Amino acid sequence: MHSFKVLSAKFEEQFSTRQFPDQPHSLYDPAQYILGIGGKRIRPVLCLLGNELFDEIMPDAYHAANAIELFHNFTLIHDDIMDKAPLRRGMPTVHTKYSDSAAILAGDVMLIHCYEHINKVNIRIRTKILSVFNKAAREVCEGQQMDMDLEGTPPEQVNYTDYVNMIALKTSVLLAASLQMGGVIGGGSEGNQEHLYEFGKNVGIAFQIQDDYLDAFGDPEKFGKQQGGDILINKKTFLLLKALELCTPAQKQHLHHLMETNPANKVTEVLQVFHDCRVDEWAEKEKEKFSQLAFEHLEAIAVLSNRKQPLKELADYLLTRQH
Amino acid sequence: MHSFKVLSAKFEEQFSTRQFPDQPHSLYDPAQYILGIGGKRIRPVLCLLGNELFDEIMPDAYHAANAIELFHNFTLIHDDIMDKAPLRRGMPTVHTKYSDSAAILAGDVMLIHCYEHINKVNIRIRTKILSVFNKAAREVCEGQQMDMDLEGTPPEQVNYTDYVNMIALKTSVLLAASLQMGGVIGGGSEGNQEHLYEFGKNVGIAFQIQDDYLDAFGDPEKFGKQQGGDILINKKTFLLLKALELCTPAQKQHLHHLMETNPANKVTEVLQVFHDCRVDEWAEKEKEKFSQLAFEHLEAIAVLSNRKQPLKELADYLLTRQH
Repeated sequence: MHSFKVLSAKFEEQFSTRQFPDQPHSLYDPAQYILGIGGKRIRPVLCLLGNELFDEIMPDAYHAANAIELFHNFTLIHDDIMDKAPLRRGMPTVHTKYSDSAAILAGDVMLIHCYEHINKVNIRIRTKILSVFNKAAREVCEGQQMDMDLEGTPPEQVNYTDYVNMIALKTSVLLAASLQMGGVIGGGSEGNQEHLYEFGKNVGIAFQIQDDYLDAFGDPEKFGKQQGGDILINKKTFLLLKALELCTPAQKQHLHHLMETNPANKVTEVLQVFHDCRVDEWAEKEKEKFSQLAFEHLEAIAVLSNRKQPLKELADYLLTRQH
Repeated sequence: MHSFKVLSAKFEEQFSTRQFPDQPHSLYDPAQYILGIGGKRIRPVLCLLGNELFDEIMPDAYHAANAIELFHNFTLIHDDIMDKAPLRRGMPTVHTKYSDSAAILAGDVMLIHCYEHINKVNIRIRTKILSVFNKAAREVCEGQQMDMDLEGTPPEQVNYTDYVNMIALKTSVLLAASLQMGGVIGGGSEGNQEHLYEFGKNVGIAFQIQDDYLDAFGDPEKFGKQQGGDILINKKTFLLLKALELCTPAQKQHLHHLMETNPANKVTEVLQVFHDCRVDEWAEKEKEKFSQLAFEHLEAIAVLSNRKQPLKELADYLLTRQH
């Protein structure tokens, strides 16, 4: 049994060798660039942890983990183009450093490369691995499109269930699928794989609620981001959507006014409304609900409870962070 | 044994059912849209023909053919964004009709979907099929990037061998791989697969030379495009690159002047230089060279020559078209 930290180092050791051919470097350098600017490698390590829940880590887990991390970085490159994001992990995004065209193509070739790794997985389980991987891959695209569709929708017209579904697709299904692929490789039963998937999915949703909460109410010193960054850009978050549902007509009008006029004290004022309609308390409960669901699924996996320790620790770490 | 026409209809029959889920329609409608605006389906039919060269057509050939046609359309969507092309097959391109973001994402999900089809191929040959498919897929990206790199290079600095290599990657390797995948499915030997691949690759290059030739010297009535379209936009073609190599310093200066100043009689004048330095004759010989190479490889495939008839007819049709 290994901790997240140990597995992360093991993963990085083999992943940090150059993934792509040299030429044409105008194609492969942008792809290699995004891999080089870091990231916590949570998803591939989840795959290793999912494997180790049931059995010793097999080479297949690294093949799948490599595919997963490449896929995740492919989505970052393409999402950054769509979002016109200038920075990623404090560094220029691929399309900013190179060009939109280079970024589109580098993403494409990374996605293609994922399947090179999957093609190395033992033939006995490859159909299943590709199928779990592809379902998640498709759903991540669906989530990204749904997110873009929501951009044009006024926040009070966004259905909360649709929003949770979008968040799950965009951010949680890949975490879930990473664990499940590990479970398949480790030889976990279908039922145990399901629980593992649901554990990952619910941790992902709880994490996103926490992320929204910290952006609004977190200590900016610890969180490392500007407080209220989401509020400033009128981002649709769990907090905003629920606040619009919970607040009085007068509060709603005030919120709309703040979002339209962007006054200097916008963050303080919006936070005041959030406090007044108790959306902060709601968010803590909502996060707790999804966390609990996650841990119930982890509990239900039929292996000795000490085997679950690294996953439990990781989830605890992710869901109690203040940073 | 079936003709191209018959197989094309068979392919279309199963391919024309909706390939994607319904929702979110903002993701899948753009993907379905490009499939609906036609195309000659040459690549998937090449896969069926490659199969039938050796044996009866297996269901696997349709799985591979579907992946190939989806991949081809994915490249069209993304290339059109990069080239800022307004029209494709006389219809608005996906990014024009929807948006750049929708087009990026629709392309992505189509590429992911390719591997759903490949995942259905018999496990006995799936590793090989995915490997042939992925090599071509990667090379098509490399070719597209090399093409973009060449855009910024003055034509007389373009190395002719590099140019042929770029064309081969961008346009021919997918034709070649389509045939080879069919060959694998039909049970052709490694050697025969190789010959089939080289046949397709060389037909592709010959076709591209012919395409450049027809753009300049073809009968616009028959060709269906404006004569000299490539000349008007200073496109790097086989003709232009070779003309710059063959012509006198005075002719070269004249060509440069025409390319820089874009006079009203540009097409006539450039064509005159092409005639004067005999690049038209050269192009016919160059096309002949690659055609002959292609047919030598077809000849070398160790099956009865009547089995090769449909492929021979298709190549003859492609390489003698005036339209």
